[in-house]
Amino acid sequence: MNQLSLQNPLFATYVIAASLMILKVVGMSWLTVYRMVRENAGFRAPEDIKKTPLNPNPNPTQLQPNERVDRIRRIQQNDLENIPFFLAAGFFYVLTEPSLLVARVLLFGYVLTRFLHFAAYLSARTHDLRATLWTPGSLIIIYMAVHSLFVALGFWT
Amino acid sequence: MNQLSLQNPLFATYVIAASLMILKVVGMSWLTVYRMVRENAGFRAPEDIKKTPLNPNPNPTQLQPNERVDRIRRIQQNDLENIPFFLAAGFFYVLTEPSLLVARVLLFGYVLTRFLHFAAYLSARTHDLRATLWTPGSLIIIYMAVHSLFVALGFWT
Amino acid sequence: MNQLSLQNPLFATYVIAASLMILKVVGMSWLTVYRMVRENAGFRAPEDIKKTPLNPNPNPTQLQPNERVDRIRRIQQNDLENIPFFLAAGFFYVLTEPSLLVARVLLFGYVLTRFLHFAAYLSARTHDLRATLWTPGSLIIIYMAVHSLFVALGFWT
Repeated sequence: MNQLSLQNPLFATYVIAASLMILKVVGMSWLTVYRMVRENAGFRAPEDIKKTPLNPNPNPTQLQPNERVDRIRRIQQNDLENIPFFLAAGFFYVLTEPSLLVARVLLFGYVLTRFLHFAAYLSARTHDLRATLWTPGSLIIIYMAVHSLFVALGFWT
Repeated sequence: MNQLSLQNPLFATYVIAASLMILKVVGMSWLTVYRMVRENAGFRAPEDIKKTPLNPNPNPTQLQPNERVDRIRRIQQNDLENIPFFLAAGFFYVLTEPSLLVARVLLFGYVLTRFLHFAAYLSARTHDLRATLWTPGSLIIIYMAVHSLFVALGFWT
Repeated sequence: MNQLSLQNPLFATYVIAASLMILKVVGMSWLTVYRMVRENAGFRAPEDIKKTPLNPNPNPTQLQPNERVDRIRRIQQNDLENIPFFLAAGFFYVLTEPSLLVARVLLFGYVLTRFLHFAAYLSARTHDLRATLWTPGSLIIIYMAVHSLFVALGFWT
């Protein structure tokens, strides 16, 4: 069967996991916007305190750091450090034709732990819990990348 | 026809849009370099104020924030929050075999609004205009990811 | 031969280079963790100075910038500005069916210069050396993206 067909269960599994992760990261942008509007603060560009229809009463304090906005930015930064590499490593991994069961555990396990990591970060749980929820996802990326590397190297020689 | 052939108009459309966006982001690095050289400032690592052939008269003020350099860094950060997810979502989207016309509107529409967003950010237009130009691109990513997710889920069941 | 088969030497070359780069970026997260533990500092979220099993003696200074930790974060930020676009541009490039020799020079050349850039940044060499080691990789991304763009445009007309 065509490797990149969505009728291929391996590839469909990957596309489901990857699409959910894309929506998660893009959601962070919208959550940042939502919190900036609610807080009326957390802006970053000097021109953002010009008087406009969306900012009728500008104030220099709007440019100061705002913890509620910055929390979402830190979550998004963590996403940027992880999710693009999940997208690429997961793609290579499914091209190595692994077992469907293992692929589902790894790909959906990644999605699950990323959503739990988000919940823990958003609600300001301890660093210990956040680290515990970040670790499996990072190990899944490493496993998929190392597996793909060795399969590709195996055909090399 | 081979899905990933550049002779496939859907895939060629995607590669054109994606390549332009890659060049756009990488261009931000070069624009940062250009502005750092012009301003002789905006450096970030402590070792960047060592005396070298390219920095013959180092000065601790070179490490202070420089708005002209930081503006490009903010633009690039916005790219990092968006473009990698456009690249992935657009790839999945064309694999779902959408209509060529719709794909062209979405993919080239994304490219167009990102270049307009860049122009508005570079020239320090209002937050309102910048937000207006950011929004369609973000919605296009969301649409393509949701569409791919549902197509993949449809084959799942 | 199937373009995305790991038995295809072009695609295998790409997967090897891409997997190494994914492991490199993810390694920066682990190096950040390692340095945060060693320095017992460089944390960023307010809740990170709660008393926990992993942080038995919390202290507000743990939230202050720590140069040894921030150096790794700067290196990772540089990765985020480059490697996702290498992954995408390299993928498009191998789909254009370039010569295997040229592809190996570009893809492995990228990997080599990124590791040298990392070594120079980690050991705080001069900005001049770091820039010299960053430049070839950026030019390789630009070359691969421009090449893919023109091949796709060629089939367009």
